Amino acid sequence: MIPVRRLLLALSLTAGASTLVRAQSVVESVRAWRERHEVEIVRELDSLLAIPNNAADRPNIRRNAELLRTMLQRRGVTARILENGAAPPAVLGELKAPGATRTVILYAHYDGQPVDPKEWATPPFEPVLRARPGANNALSAVLPMPERGRFDPESRIYARSASDDKAPIVAMLAALDAMKASGIAPSVNLKFFYEGEEEAGSDHLKELLTRYKDALGGDVWLIVDGPVHQSRKQLISFGVRGTVGLELTTYGPARALHSGHYGNWAPNPGMLMVELLASLRDGDGNILIDHYMDDVVPPTAAELAAVRALPPIDAQLRHDLLLAKSEGNDAQIGERLMKPAVNLRGIRVGNVAPVAANAIAPEARASIDFRLVPNQTPVHVKELLEAHLAKRGWWVTHDSVTAEMRLAHARIVRLQWEEGYPATRTSMELPVSLALRQVISDAKGEPVLVSPTSGASLGQYIFTDVLHAPTISVPIVNHDNDQHAKNENLRLQNLWDGIETLAAVMANLGKVWPGTIP
Amino acid sequence: MIPVRRLLLALSLTAGASTLVRAQSVVESVRAWRERHEVEIVRELDSLLAIPNNAADRPNIRRNAELLRTMLQRRGVTARILENGAAPPAVLGELKAPGATRTVILYAHYDGQPVDPKEWATPPFEPVLRARPGANNALSAVLPMPERGRFDPESRIYARSASDDKAPIVAMLAALDAMKASGIAPSVNLKFFYEGEEEAGSDHLKELLTRYKDALGGDVWLIVDGPVHQSRKQLISFGVRGTVGLELTTYGPARALHSGHYGNWAPNPGMLMVELLASLRDGDGNILIDHYMDDVVPPTAAELAAVRALPPIDAQLRHDLLLAKSEGNDAQIGERLMKPAVNLRGIRVGNVAPVAANAIAPEARASIDFRLVPNQTPVHVKELLEAHLAKRGWWVTHDSVTAEMRLAHARIVRLQWEEGYPATRTSMELPVSLALRQVISDAKGEPVLVSPTSGASLGQYIFTDVLHAPTISVPIVNHDNDQHAKNENLRLQNLWDGIETLAAVMANLGKVWPGTIP
Repeated sequence: MIPVRRLLLALSLTAGASTLVRAQSVVESVRAWRERHEVEIVRELDSLLAIPNNAADRPNIRRNAELLRTMLQRRGVTARILENGAAPPAVLGELKAPGATRTVILYAHYDGQPVDPKEWATPPFEPVLRARPGANNALSAVLPMPERGRFDPESRIYARSASDDKAPIVAMLAALDAMKASGIAPSVNLKFFYEGEEEAGSDHLKELLTRYKDALGGDVWLIVDGPVHQSRKQLISFGVRGTVGLELTTYGPARALHSGHYGNWAPNPGMLMVELLASLRDGDGNILIDHYMDDVVPPTAAELAAVRALPPIDAQLRHDLLLAKSEGNDAQIGERLMKPAVNLRGIRVGNVAPVAANAIAPEARASIDFRLVPNQTPVHVKELLEAHLAKRGWWVTHDSVTAEMRLAHARIVRLQWEEGYPATRTSMELPVSLALRQVISDAKGEPVLVSPTSGASLGQYIFTDVLHAPTISVPIVNHDNDQHAKNENLRLQNLWDGIETLAAVMANLGKVWPGTIP
Repeated sequence: MIPVRRLLLALSLTAGASTLVRAQSVVESVRAWRERHEVEIVRELDSLLAIPNNAADRPNIRRNAELLRTMLQRRGVTARILENGAAPPAVLGELKAPGATRTVILYAHYDGQPVDPKEWATPPFEPVLRARPGANNALSAVLPMPERGRFDPESRIYARSASDDKAPIVAMLAALDAMKASGIAPSVNLKFFYEGEEEAGSDHLKELLTRYKDALGGDVWLIVDGPVHQSRKQLISFGVRGTVGLELTTYGPARALHSGHYGNWAPNPGMLMVELLASLRDGDGNILIDHYMDDVVPPTAAELAAVRALPPIDAQLRHDLLLAKSEGNDAQIGERLMKPAVNLRGIRVGNVAPVAANAIAPEARASIDFRLVPNQTPVHVKELLEAHLAKRGWWVTHDSVTAEMRLAHARIVRLQWEEGYPATRTSMELPVSLALRQVISDAKGEPVLVSPTSGASLGQYIFTDVLHAPTISVPIVNHDNDQHAKNENLRLQNLWDGIETLAAVMANLGKVWPGTIP
């Protein structure tokens, strides 16, 4: 492993002045075109955001896929819907570059996290424009959509998937438009792959990639998902954490009981859940599951060095998020994200004020997402957790709990697992890794930030597993986008920057990647 | 203290054959009248249940009070509304018995627990009649309300407060009607006192009793609230547990965050709450709060003997409630209810499936009700809990949490306490205690069950404190009434039995109570 500073030095030696000039000229042309077409870019994004996109909502998922096919075809990209039985389909586009010897596949996903519309300030599938948010990301007033001219680049579009992950799709296609209008040809063959069930755990992605293996050949997958660095600077990330989701249910009396007449006689499923959850991790994020850390491969010195070279943001983040302390005694966020995490997504049991009742609830629900690091597998995580629970007296089942089961077992927990997937890390020293860093650094006029892994998860291992191609993340959206939460949003300057970044990659990557056309 | 069997012996010696005959004759007359008037009794109950009665809903609370005043006046009872500033009013009725020297005050409350109408099978304030429930209290079909004739006594009325605590009010008034129609005079002066904020913690009851002290004189308060024994036999209870309610809030990031990008960096308020709750009690009901048990006076030998003499119901209850085990390793329910309890009413944090999102929530809420036993006070419970939390690194506040507080303190918990009240126990050996047992035993034709305390709570200490009168509970409703939960209900046979029990008390208590008219 080569330390990051030496890598950057090597990079600057191979990068001639000519590539820098070329990159700057692409950026200038694309920017000028975008400044004349902001309204139509945002309108196209809005029309895509207006279609609900929970992966479980199959009719709307199909409407999304059909619109994406049309959007690709409108640009002269050969496009088709990749059917996958009852699972959400993917959308594939192909655009050959005459004479190109390398193929780059740009990935995004068009499905979104589930929404609870009651929580949103405006309906999640009716995009609105708002002025720059206030302190702590507080919502500003809704603005009218301009009919022409330019947007305040600090204004934001609010809708589910505005950032995660529909804006990247629109950025790719606007980049194509801008290049075409400016007479800039792609330097690599391009494929566009839009997944439809990423937020539901990518349970059928492997099947889909296997089925369409022949159509999905390529030299690298660029994953355009997730946010840029919290300093708002462009970042490339070479890995992701794996993930597996779990729903847990514990059981008390068959019906809710008066807590006076039955309190400390009838088991309280909420307290049973509390006891269970408290055995998994402590309040500071340390995982307590038996043997859980045995599998974990610690980060390499090079990876740690790369993380430590990122701009310091922790103090500012804590301030913005009103946190007196972050977990691990204020350890740096980049280092924390290289560790495995057990995140509590939610608990539902009984009621709290103003409708708290003096009652013992019949069952308690909790939801967890596990974030995995290299060498952990979902299968082994499941085994470890279930052994941990069995050792603590829990009777574990995956099926519906019957009256017979309840009468036979005192501490029942029902576990409903998502399939999940492992983490991936691509080497930062591959030729394509170095070339990508150069192209984006040239476009930005400064060294692009490099991270060994993102904290987030994506089924990237499947691309490597099935297609034997490396994956690298090129995120474009703002970090403070409230993705996965209410009032998700996209800062427009990030969309504008993303269009330039992606255009620079398409136009120039083939020119500095060893073995491609000059 | 005299063991229960010797008490019962003493009772049978003082009770002559004449009182038994007299009791049976009252019961027969009242039953015959009720059998001819079931439809009008249930109609009156339904009209009372149709008025929403959350103590916080002041306009409807007043409508309840006004209807109760009218219902009393219709029987020739002098009635008025006892105003108490902005707090819910009480309703007081008075009916003199010519020549009587003792005054009995019959207590019930007309407010109900908060409802979450979404959870109910039918709207909580639109009473419906259903056939006898199935196994595990499963709802049976809705039946048409009969226009005339009799009800199936196993059928039930479903509505908030059907059992807790409006049926007792209707039972008292139907008993008066039946006595009047049968020419049976009360043997004691009667007062009827209906409270309007019992389920909200009786926060203003002391103030109200103090204000109307002169009007509320009497020799004993009979509390007609709570259920009869689970064996469906009549029970008298000489005490109640105290209670104090608590809402807790813990804090994470100022806004919901993506659990991949921030998971094990940003503190998870749900896991902080889990850690906090796990420190209060274990999954088996044992209280872990520092020094909490120091205050607790253990039950006397006589109280334990009384509890152990109750019919065994635990095995049947566990079977009905689908519990393989009850807390305390299957210890008897009566003994468990003489201990203090920490009951988790509910937890709300983030979301679970199908809307679980991979996010870290900004805050977590939990709700607890503490059940107190003699010698514990709400004030000391609060002190003990807050000291327990402070010792574990929590920064405790009772006010709204500001940005400054969040930036200054890593582990903040906001505590919102109800006022609460202590437990009470009346001696089972008072003359009125013995007389009441005799009158009800005679009416039932078998020794009435006696319990030193109910598990439930009621602000009875206030009656003793302010009015220096003993309190005894004479519950009438079914134990399986789902009070405090969704689909609360009243088994009609309990209403019929309750009318007879209360009529026997009014007609005969003065005749066997030493010092009253013969």
